[in-house]
Amino acid sequence: MLSINKNYLNLKESYLFSEIGRRANAFIAANPDKKVIKLGIGDVTLPLCDAVIKELSAGVSDMASASTFRGYGPEQGYDFLKGAIKDYYAKKSVSLEKDEIFVSDGAKSDLGNILDIFGRDNTVLIPDPVYPVYVDTNIMDGRSVSYLKANEENGFRPLPDADTKGDIIYLCSPNNPTGAVYTKDELKVWVDFALSNNSIILFDAAYEAFIIDNELPGSIYEIEGAKKCAIEFCSLSKTAGFTGTRCGYTIVPNDLVFDGVQLNKLWLRRQTTKFNGVSYIIQKGAAAAFSDEGIKQTRENIAYYRRNASVITSTLDKCGIWYCGGKNSPYVWLKCPNNMDSWTFFDYLLNNANVVGTPGEGFGENGKGFFRLTSFNNYENTVEAMKRFENML
Amino acid sequence: MLSINKNYLNLKESYLFSEIGRRANAFIAANPDKKVIKLGIGDVTLPLCDAVIKELSAGVSDMASASTFRGYGPEQGYDFLKGAIKDYYAKKSVSLEKDEIFVSDGAKSDLGNILDIFGRDNTVLIPDPVYPVYVDTNIMDGRSVSYLKANEENGFRPLPDADTKGDIIYLCSPNNPTGAVYTKDELKVWVDFALSNNSIILFDAAYEAFIIDNELPGSIYEIEGAKKCAIEFCSLSKTAGFTGTRCGYTIVPNDLVFDGVQLNKLWLRRQTTKFNGVSYIIQKGAAAAFSDEGIKQTRENIAYYRRNASVITSTLDKCGIWYCGGKNSPYVWLKCPNNMDSWTFFDYLLNNANVVGTPGEGFGENGKGFFRLTSFNNYENTVEAMKRFENML
Repeated sequence: MLSINKNYLNLKESYLFSEIGRRANAFIAANPDKKVIKLGIGDVTLPLCDAVIKELSAGVSDMASASTFRGYGPEQGYDFLKGAIKDYYAKKSVSLEKDEIFVSDGAKSDLGNILDIFGRDNTVLIPDPVYPVYVDTNIMDGRSVSYLKANEENGFRPLPDADTKGDIIYLCSPNNPTGAVYTKDELKVWVDFALSNNSIILFDAAYEAFIIDNELPGSIYEIEGAKKCAIEFCSLSKTAGFTGTRCGYTIVPNDLVFDGVQLNKLWLRRQTTKFNGVSYIIQKGAAAAFSDEGIKQTRENIAYYRRNASVITSTLDKCGIWYCGGKNSPYVWLKCPNNMDSWTFFDYLLNNANVVGTPGEGFGENGKGFFRLTSFNNYENTVEAMKRFENML
Repeated sequence: MLSINKNYLNLKESYLFSEIGRRANAFIAANPDKKVIKLGIGDVTLPLCDAVIKELSAGVSDMASASTFRGYGPEQGYDFLKGAIKDYYAKKSVSLEKDEIFVSDGAKSDLGNILDIFGRDNTVLIPDPVYPVYVDTNIMDGRSVSYLKANEENGFRPLPDADTKGDIIYLCSPNNPTGAVYTKDELKVWVDFALSNNSIILFDAAYEAFIIDNELPGSIYEIEGAKKCAIEFCSLSKTAGFTGTRCGYTIVPNDLVFDGVQLNKLWLRRQTTKFNGVSYIIQKGAAAAFSDEGIKQTRENIAYYRRNASVITSTLDKCGIWYCGGKNSPYVWLKCPNNMDSWTFFDYLLNNANVVGTPGEGFGENGKGFFRLTSFNNYENTVEAMKRFENML
């Protein structure tokens, strides 16, 4: 008699985005003359850059003739792409071996799948508010999860204290949803904590390309000792607009040894057994995103989004509203004005400024009273939305 | 203190293909004048068909401008592709709902990942010889695996008997590595067994497009009752030459209910949590493979491989060697002549005919004394190889 994985029954349904959609649509139906602007978008909107398009096309052409056709490739990714990623890290003064780099179809897949190689008896520490995937993937495995409070006091960059415990620790910097970015000194505290507790840090660097402040770390491996205690997940989704094109990568340093076993070898075995690599065509395009021309072009797109973020943050500055994020992140995380709760402010903003955002409590307990605005709409809409926001208050 | 998943320590390394490579390379080095022909290839060699290339290119173009750009898509796949797959099944008289179809980056991923939704206490039944992924993915979860003997007597199409037990049952038809194809009556025996034992059948149909005998089932859902006991995995890898392009699909019928839970909903939750869908570009190409033009063109490629298979089988017929597969499969599975064991015959064939194949014992105990030849080399080489094979005996 087949049994299901009963841990799935402990998952909660998330109604965040469906509830946002329901309320926004109800407003639009009742107010057909009003132009509603969505600053809740968590997805890129600019097209892929020319350098990437050119190589995607070259990849398609390669598949059209027998002499250049590619069948099964290495599960870990083609050397040409791993080399491009290695060079990209070298620019951050992080030296990697190619066999420490695993190309994937996106950070979400690897963040979920990495748990395959860990025991189910590990305890898990997750900052709150949080990207829900960290929580749900552990609930599916039946692991015990505890939360770390991110809040206004710690700038949504929580650090461990004497009571902190966790075998598996999730950190996301620049953070989704808060936009907060750990400094090198702060990450050093985490690395030292992990080293002294034999914990692993799962470091989500999906938004690293938004960092413009050179003092802020774009990779956890900029911190000494991190190669002995951290796996880094990254993605081209936000770096190069690949949310619908799908390519990411995971760094599993050879120095990671737990229970006497190299994690790199376990992950290699996991990937060669349960994955067949990313499409050759997509890997061609991904490699182009790391070329000089590709970096120049993708950074222009990011600058466009960053300008939108600065429209948002300068309005909040004028209104005297507390926020974090925005400068080194596409997300702005603000304290709801007049101590409104998240959903009250959602309705208030929708009714009075006809702007849609995301209530912070959708991301966890500590998101209560906070709100997320994003920079992924176009410039004109963002300016218009924030004018209305200012007038509303 | 982080613990690893200790089940990984129970995995055996597979030396099959590295040992084949080592012996072949040693022979080539010692005999530089000999032309060695490889009939061990398990990968397609013909380029993608025009219909697919055209739509892959259109997909790339869509990503180049803002008005047609695609960001995050549905994790389960775009409607246009699920619709094409639904229509493809309708031609086999199998009626599916779109929400029963899950698009993936390949059958290997889903065959591994599907185990997430099942308890670790289930027992597993796997035919031997076998595609090693079925075994290793279960060892990683610590499940108990028993084997079902496929052999000459049952035509490498084993059926359950009074002693057969298994909560999770793997069937692959047309089979890799043996090329054997279950008849409808035989599959009916399996479906009835699963229904009466509350077991699930994981049906690997990756080679279904090679079936030309209309009486043979290309989907387990051609069998009455299968929607209550079977998940079907399929891939465009062999159907349309997508081994390096990466697209597959998994059918999880709404009628599958175990422990009072719809498996479809569990798998949906798994995929929306740990997967972000297949690249839009690749899905465009995949849909083209199911168009009338696409089916016509991909079937021409399959006919080319099938002609190679018939060159192999007609030689074996002449030599009076027992085999299965070949007609409805790219694989031919033969009994080693003169009761040689697999590796002895490998060396004999390499030394005397300069042909490389795959020793059957690499696929399990019951592969001992058998040998796999494949149809993925080109026609001229296949003819030459089989001439040498005939002369050798």
